[in-house]
Amino acid sequence: MSLTFEINSRSGKARTGRLLTPYAVIETPVFMPVGTVGSVKGVPQDTLEELGAQIILGNTYHLYLRPGVDTVRKLGGLHGFMAWRRAILTDSGGFQVFSLNELRKVSEEGVTFRSHLDGSSHFFSPESAMEAQIGLGADIIMAFDECTEYPADQARMRASMEMTARWAARSKKYFEGHKEGVPWRAASEIPTLAAEGAARMGHPGSGDSTQSLFGIVQGGMDRALRKESAERTIEIGFPGYAIGGLSVGEPRELTREIVESTLEHLPADQPRYLMGVGTPEEIVEYASLGVDMMDCVLPTRAARHGLLFTSEGKVSIKQARYAQDAGPLDPNCGCRVCKRYSRAYLRHLYASNEVLAQVLNTIHNLSFYLDTMRRVRHSISLGEESRSF
Amino acid sequence: MSLTFEINSRSGKARTGRLLTPYAVIETPVFMPVGTVGSVKGVPQDTLEELGAQIILGNTYHLYLRPGVDTVRKLGGLHGFMAWRRAILTDSGGFQVFSLNELRKVSEEGVTFRSHLDGSSHFFSPESAMEAQIGLGADIIMAFDECTEYPADQARMRASMEMTARWAARSKKYFEGHKEGVPWRAASEIPTLAAEGAARMGHPGSGDSTQSLFGIVQGGMDRALRKESAERTIEIGFPGYAIGGLSVGEPRELTREIVESTLEHLPADQPRYLMGVGTPEEIVEYASLGVDMMDCVLPTRAARHGLLFTSEGKVSIKQARYAQDAGPLDPNCGCRVCKRYSRAYLRHLYASNEVLAQVLNTIHNLSFYLDTMRRVRHSISLGEESRSF
Repeated sequence: MSLTFEINSRSGKARTGRLLTPYAVIETPVFMPVGTVGSVKGVPQDTLEELGAQIILGNTYHLYLRPGVDTVRKLGGLHGFMAWRRAILTDSGGFQVFSLNELRKVSEEGVTFRSHLDGSSHFFSPESAMEAQIGLGADIIMAFDECTEYPADQARMRASMEMTARWAARSKKYFEGHKEGVPWRAASEIPTLAAEGAARMGHPGSGDSTQSLFGIVQGGMDRALRKESAERTIEIGFPGYAIGGLSVGEPRELTREIVESTLEHLPADQPRYLMGVGTPEEIVEYASLGVDMMDCVLPTRAARHGLLFTSEGKVSIKQARYAQDAGPLDPNCGCRVCKRYSRAYLRHLYASNEVLAQVLNTIHNLSFYLDTMRRVRHSISLGEESRSF
Repeated sequence: MSLTFEINSRSGKARTGRLLTPYAVIETPVFMPVGTVGSVKGVPQDTLEELGAQIILGNTYHLYLRPGVDTVRKLGGLHGFMAWRRAILTDSGGFQVFSLNELRKVSEEGVTFRSHLDGSSHFFSPESAMEAQIGLGADIIMAFDECTEYPADQARMRASMEMTARWAARSKKYFEGHKEGVPWRAASEIPTLAAEGAARMGHPGSGDSTQSLFGIVQGGMDRALRKESAERTIEIGFPGYAIGGLSVGEPRELTREIVESTLEHLPADQPRYLMGVGTPEEIVEYASLGVDMMDCVLPTRAARHGLLFTSEGKVSIKQARYAQDAGPLDPNCGCRVCKRYSRAYLRHLYASNEVLAQVLNTIHNLSFYLDTMRRVRHSISLGEESRSF
């Protein structure tokens, strides 16, 4: 086994559990910080550990372009490359390529796209996306999917969903045939870690872990298509399932409706990953609906723009009203930023374009997200309505 | 007493000692990282503490413009504002204003200059520079001086040196009349810290510490003028003396010659501060000549440009040769960067314009400088020639 998921408590539709990968034990529901090119922007890895991040996300599209899969593979995969000994998940590149808009061309075979860095031409197919993700060596990797644009008509949503299903089957086939090629099965240092992971999973010393490939449910904003996509993806068979293609411009109420209805069609005993959401309120709500894993650039990206999440609401730290505010950013937060610095100082750093502004703001926002999920897990384990957060 | 300096060991002209300020005990010779606007660019304060930084430098010119002295004063001075409980030294603004070139106009009264931020007009005199530095509340502050440009003829060097001497007397007069106004004597929280500092200095509970004002020796590249400047500054009387006006474009051999000859004219039992130097080799050399304090933007600025100092020489981490180099930046360095990350990863961060590149590069370079000074102190205390580093 390369992935184990155990559910420890339930409250309504919500559940807490433990997800065991070769590199980590992850308490769920979990929020995964985004480390696009192998770095959660501005935050050293030891700080991420202190914050309690158990799993982070890397973007295959960006890493494929720079530094390149070959380099990451030679350094022992992403874990070795970025010196991160906890879990990693990589996306398939599908959503990133989707975001390129004009720069891509989709066919049954795959997607031709141009690099945002130098305009060079590249091609991702289910097979090449798997090859890239195996080389990057994350604990959990994602099937190559097509993210349906919004809005889209019925015919387009169906065609796109069906192509994602065919690509999922091709992704799995390639993965099963090549999964032994993950860099940390070959590297001299890493098997120890893999063996430790295996030991934690009750397979002491087996050391034969591989990555785990998750399927992705698409189907646009149509509940029936989402149901069909879920069924077809489950039929192919994956150790976990993601809901993709949301947060693409649709109203938030619609997002929630699609999430809630799609979750009903996913296996209750396997991890459910909602991709690319959301605000602190939203991640609490999705956890209450039974989502186990989430990722979002919001806490890190907002931090870079001086937008900070606190127990008392959002704070735009650039505002002049904070210029002489001696209080902590969030009086109810125990993070190293709130324990030490004043709003006045954080405002000054931001106004002065100091790099430390990004560093401290990001640390706080991630702390707020990770603490929020900690409280959600605690609440669910007590049988409370986690939505009360 | 607001400053105590004790010499513990000597080796040749070099000495080790302890400098006690209201906020810290500083082992000398000491290198002071530069935190221009109240932040050592990219490095959180707790990391600076881990690195062993005992005293950092703030730039009066920058802080005066942004966030402004009034704001810093209201937050308890720089210590309170930037949440730094160790020692701070501020420069007088003289060198920074000197660097503005076209934007300044010097008269006997002081210097009119334009802000590099918005072009607004400002005026620094010895009195207003003291007022600003008292408001900023650093442990050690500097007399307002004129930094003589290089090259300069004999008449210019003499006139400039004499004005610096007159400004030093005015600086001291203003400081003595207003030193009770330092923010941490009034603030409710800070007297505890000041009292602790006083206690460390053998004046338990006195809590009547003030800042300490250092004089600055000028005189261009003329040894006789430097001697005269030293004598006139000593006659005014300060608890410590700095050598200013070097590293302004002159050859390094000339810098060394002026430093060495000027040091002979400074009191042996008081701290000697060489401003704005230098490379790792240079700080070792100046320590061997009997300098006790140094500051320089080099380790932090070079880090931002990917230039890293190591026990094996300089490393330009941007070079492609490091793209797949799995080794540590410096195999002989125990800093958190060298212990964890590979050259390949650091190169990737730099090539990808990741903010973490600046953070990690700066941490390493500061660690290298601070470790270098630690070794120098150890070597001097053993009676060895510290120049052997």
